Formats: sequence, C-alpha cells, structure tokens
Amino acid sequence: MITVPADALVELGTAIFTSLGAAREKARFVAETIVEANLTGHDSHGVVAYLTYTERIKGGYIDVEAAPTVVEETATTALVDGRWSFGQLTAMKAMEVAVEKAERSHISAVAAYRCNHIGRVGYYTAWAAERGLVALMFVNVGHPVVTVYGGRGRVLGTNPLSIAIPTGGEPFLLDYATSVVAHGKVRQALLKGRRIPRGWIRDKDGGETDDPAALDAGGWLLPFGGHKGYCLQLVNELLGAALTGSRSGLDPEEEPPSTNGVFIIALDPDAFVGLEAFRERCEAILRGVKRCEAEAGMRVMIPGEPEWETRRRRMRGGVPLPEALWSRLVDLAGELGVDEDLYRPWMRET
Amino acid sequence: MITVPADALVELGTAIFTSLGAAREKARFVAETIVEANLTGHDSHGVVAYLTYTERIKGGYIDVEAAPTVVEETATTALVDGRWSFGQLTAMKAMEVAVEKAERSHISAVAAYRCNHIGRVGYYTAWAAERGLVALMFVNVGHPVVTVYGGRGRVLGTNPLSIAIPTGGEPFLLDYATSVVAHGKVRQALLKGRRIPRGWIRDKDGGETDDPAALDAGGWLLPFGGHKGYCLQLVNELLGAALTGSRSGLDPEEEPPSTNGVFIIALDPDAFVGLEAFRERCEAILRGVKRCEAEAGMRVMIPGEPEWETRRRRMRGGVPLPEALWSRLVDLAGELGVDEDLYRPWMRET
Repeated sequence: MITVPADALVELGTAIFTSLGAAREKARFVAETIVEANLTGHDSHGVVAYLTYTERIKGGYIDVEAAPTVVEETATTALVDGRWSFGQLTAMKAMEVAVEKAERSHISAVAAYRCNHIGRVGYYTAWAAERGLVALMFVNVGHPVVTVYGGRGRVLGTNPLSIAIPTGGEPFLLDYATSVVAHGKVRQALLKGRRIPRGWIRDKDGGETDDPAALDAGGWLLPFGGHKGYCLQLVNELLGAALTGSRSGLDPEEEPPSTNGVFIIALDPDAFVGLEAFRERCEAILRGVKRCEAEAGMRVMIPGEPEWETRRRRMRGGVPLPEALWSRLVDLAGELGVDEDLYRPWMRET
Repeated sequence: MITVPADALVELGTAIFTSLGAAREKARFVAETIVEANLTGHDSHGVVAYLTYTERIKGGYIDVEAAPTVVEETATTALVDGRWSFGQLTAMKAMEVAVEKAERSHISAVAAYRCNHIGRVGYYTAWAAERGLVALMFVNVGHPVVTVYGGRGRVLGTNPLSIAIPTGGEPFLLDYATSVVAHGKVRQALLKGRRIPRGWIRDKDGGETDDPAALDAGGWLLPFGGHKGYCLQLVNELLGAALTGSRSGLDPEEEPPSTNGVFIIALDPDAFVGLEAFRERCEAILRGVKRCEAEAGMRVMIPGEPEWETRRRRMRGGVPLPEALWSRLVDLAGELGVDEDLYRPWMRET
C-alpha cells in the first residue's frame, strides 16, 4: 500500500479536475467529497473516482462548466436541474437549498434530476446534521445491477439510503446501499483475490456463488434483509426516480453512464422538542445502546461510529491506497500535465 | 376456525368499547382500524386487541374520554399530545393534521407523545396515500423486546416503519417491524404449536433457537437485515422517542403498559413532477418490477400487494379467527352485556 495524506489527495484531485477545465473552487469541492469517502473508509467511492470521472468528462457525460440550478421552488420545496454537472455539485446544491428552507420553514424537500454520480451519499446528510438538522436522502441509481426480492436478473440500481441525525458529537449516520453490499465491495474483493460470502450475489444463471467475478460476468446483487430491504430499494426508486424525473433502473440503458436521482427531506428538531433537548435525548439513547452487553466477538457500534473512527485514524496517518491504483493516478496526473510536486513525494511504497 | 364478516367484527368492537365508556364514533373508529388489520392479514394487530384494550381501559391506561390535542404548531409542523386516549385516535389525529398541512405547504411533519398502542401503522400511511400524499411514519415502541446488532438482551422495541406512496391503484405500502418479525408472529407460532426459523429470536442465554416459547421466557428478537436493519431500528427510536418526547425502550419500565412514539412526514408529489405524472411513473416502474422473471417457487410482489389481496378475499369471505380467540371475545361480550345479536350468529365453527 501507498499512504498519502488526505490534503495531498485533495490537491491532486483539484489539479486533475482543473486541468480538465473545471473552475478551481468546483474542482476542489469535488475532490474534497471524494477524499472524504476514503477518510471515512468507503474506498469504493474514493479517489478511484479521479479515474472514472476523468473518463466521463472526456466522454462529455460530466459537463465541468455546468452549474446546477433551482428551476422550481416554493417556501418548502425545490426542484434542482443538475444540468449534468459533477453530481457532487448537484447533490450539494440540493442539500444547501433543503437546509436553508428547513431552517426557515422547519421542514423541506428537494428533488434533483439530470444528476451524475454523487459519490458517498452520507457526505451530504452528515453536512446537514452538523448544522443541527435531520436529513434523509433517497437515491436511485439509473443502472440496474440488483435483483428484486423473489426475482432474477438485474432490475434496479443499488439505490442508497442515508439518514443523518444531530447528536452531541459526530452525527448519527445511516448510509448504505439497499443491496446486501455496494457494487464496489464486490469489485474490491475481486481486486484483492478474495471470495465473497454466499448471499451477496447470484451468478448469471441465478446460482449461489462466492466468486466476486460472477457479478460483472452477468450476475446480480441481492437486496439486503429479504423483502424488508426490497421495500426500501423500491421506495428509493419511486422517490429518487419517479418523483424527481430521473432515469429508473428499468429504463432502457443510455448515456450518460452513471446517473443518480436524488430526493432530500430536511427537518429542524427545534419545531418539536427543541434542538438541544433532542441532542441530549439522542445522546442518552445512544449511550444506553452502547452500554448494552455485546455478543461474543462482537462490539455494539452506533451508525457512523466506524466512519468517524476511520476518519480520525486516516487524518493522522494518511489514506492507504493499493499500489496499482496509485500508479494509475500518477499516470493520469502525468498525462494531464499536473505539477509533479503534487504526487512525487508519495511515490514510494510504505 | 370461525369465520366472521368484517362488518360484524366492527359492530362487536364498537359495542365493546362503548360499553366501556367510549363515545360511539370513537369506539367505531378504533374497531374499524383493528378489523382493518385482520382484513389485510395482520391478525397479530387484529381483534385480539379487543381483549388487551379492554384490560388497559379497565386498568386506567387508556382514557376513553380523552381527546388528542395539537399543543404546538406552525404552518408545516405540529406536536400532538395524545393524552393517553386510544393510540388509534392519536395516530389518526396526527396523520390528519400532517395531511392538511402538507396539502397547504407541500410538506409537513407531526410528532405525537403520550400515545397508547396505535395498532397497524400502515393504516394511517395508506390513508394519506389514498389522498394523494406520500406518508412516512417512524414509530418507537416503549417496551424493549429486540436486541441491537452485535448485542445481547432486550434493548429496544420492535420500532415499526411505514411508508405509503400513491400509485395508480391501491397504494404502495411498506409497513413492518424493524425486528426480523413482529412480536405477534412469534406468539402466533406458539399458539399454533409451530417451530420458528432460527434467526428470528435468541433464547434468554443468547442461544439460537426455533422454539417460539423462548421469546417470552426471557429471550429477544433480532433486528432484521443485520446492521442495516439495526440502523433503521435506531432511526425510529431517535425520531419516534427522542424527537417527540415519548418513552424510549431504554427508559425504566413503567405504566402505561404499551406506548408508541409517533413521528410523521407527509409530502405532496404535486410540488415536484405533479401527482398524475408521479402516479403514472410509479405505476410504470412497479409494472416493470412485476414483469421481471421470478426465482423458482417465488413470486415477485409489490409492497402492499399481499395486504390488498388478503383484504379483497376477506371482505368477500369473512375474517377467519381461531376458535379459542372467538370464544374469549364472546365471553368478554357477555361480561360487558353486549347485545347477543352482535355475536350469536357467528357462534358456529366453519
């Protein structure tokens, strides 16, 4: 592994995206959200995106000059046209508008369409929770790779759900795909040459398998938690795609290659028991949960806790990256004429 | 089994609750919501509640004269004090206020506290969806019977979640406990003398078991879907209890015996793509899902479909009840001096 400080990865990403035509401020924000995924341990949504996003910019799918725009609004709602900008800009714009409106009207809902891949969904909900709001984000993915409960074949996307809640410290953070695992986790097992647990995917014939290669060979992921997870997968499709006017996983495949439909609800605890009382009560409940006895070999954790722990560790010690990935990033930086000082210091194995 | 027409069960429940002091209109509404649970196949929330609610009324836990009241409100939010009336009245009041406010302001949130058991949660969300609104209901249960992911012992309640979405026909309806199964399903297996699948509960020592008696003998239910279901169990505790000021499953046990904390979000699709466009798009997506190939021995169903199917069948053919339950209901009706014509016609086995 190569270990690179988070701020160096942000600088590198900023340089890559500016060299592809993005304004510096935009490029930096997109790079920051991507590195934040690495920091919180979600490497599948991390700097590997510098490679995929570069391809999508070159292919004309991400428009580096576009700015997401509110096209309709009321005091409590807004519709955001992402205009195929970086998905991160669209999601952040939508969340900013949702937070503003919830601060004024106690609750709000914002929908976004023509939206590219937004990366780690928890970035946006946690941002709102750090500002004292509860945020829910229902996202559909326009490309099918997950079956439905009782079904066969690829029907819908991994349709992630995130809910962040302000507590005394770092936010409570639910942030996951409604499939058993995210697509990226299967790809990472493949890269590392590992088998996967049976129950994650089916092969192209519907058979059980522990071979991660079977997914990209025509297999499919399963929804998590049987019919209960399947219900949430569909909620995200109905709110994320149908309510926003975004592409469904069931629509014919077409360009661009990776789209998200985004539906956000933000709400202000002050309208109920009050923010401070709410924070204290949440803390008391979560402390009570943490105090309960653990099963042998297990540890009771609060949603978000693994992320915030990994973040503290990686902020101090840097972000570990597979050598092969780092070398592809260095090659890309070289091709794009990025200043060598932004990657040369980290070119040794650690 | 004894088969009784739904309207006869409503009449019987109305008579039982009025004989206990409830006004006729209230008694009838509570009975209707309870029979609706039987009609949709959720017998654990059905007329067995005539027995438990009678005990709670006699014990002073349900106040048949109380009326739930909005104690704070804004254009988009409200806080409802249930005043320990029938939980059904509190939940319905909260949903009615949520729908009114969402119709005016596009989105709303309503919290309810001092709320008794509300019965089947999907009743209220489906009611809103039938009026063209999306409704989400996060409910905590004040009595612990479910452990947390990685934990041991009873920590939180079954914390049900319901999300209803208007479509072309009967609403899309997610409506479930965040435990693997509801408490009532284990009790029903016990009554029928059946074993349960391993993975539903643990016994009092934390061991795996297929014995339904192990639950009430100090065992506990597991959250559904591993850590992903656990996250939702906690969301319902934070929104249902902390945000509403209701009792948490972690609080010391005290009276009354069965409480719910209720948090509702209602939203109007008209503020986004428009209600008709939304309905059509939802229908198209759900039709697409139904068309997909099924696994051997399985059938792809839409959330709510089993409920609406059972409802149509039982509206025609009546509600089947175990003979032992029916005989306890008849005894109760006798004790309370309910008109014999309301139960005598159904006193034969079918």
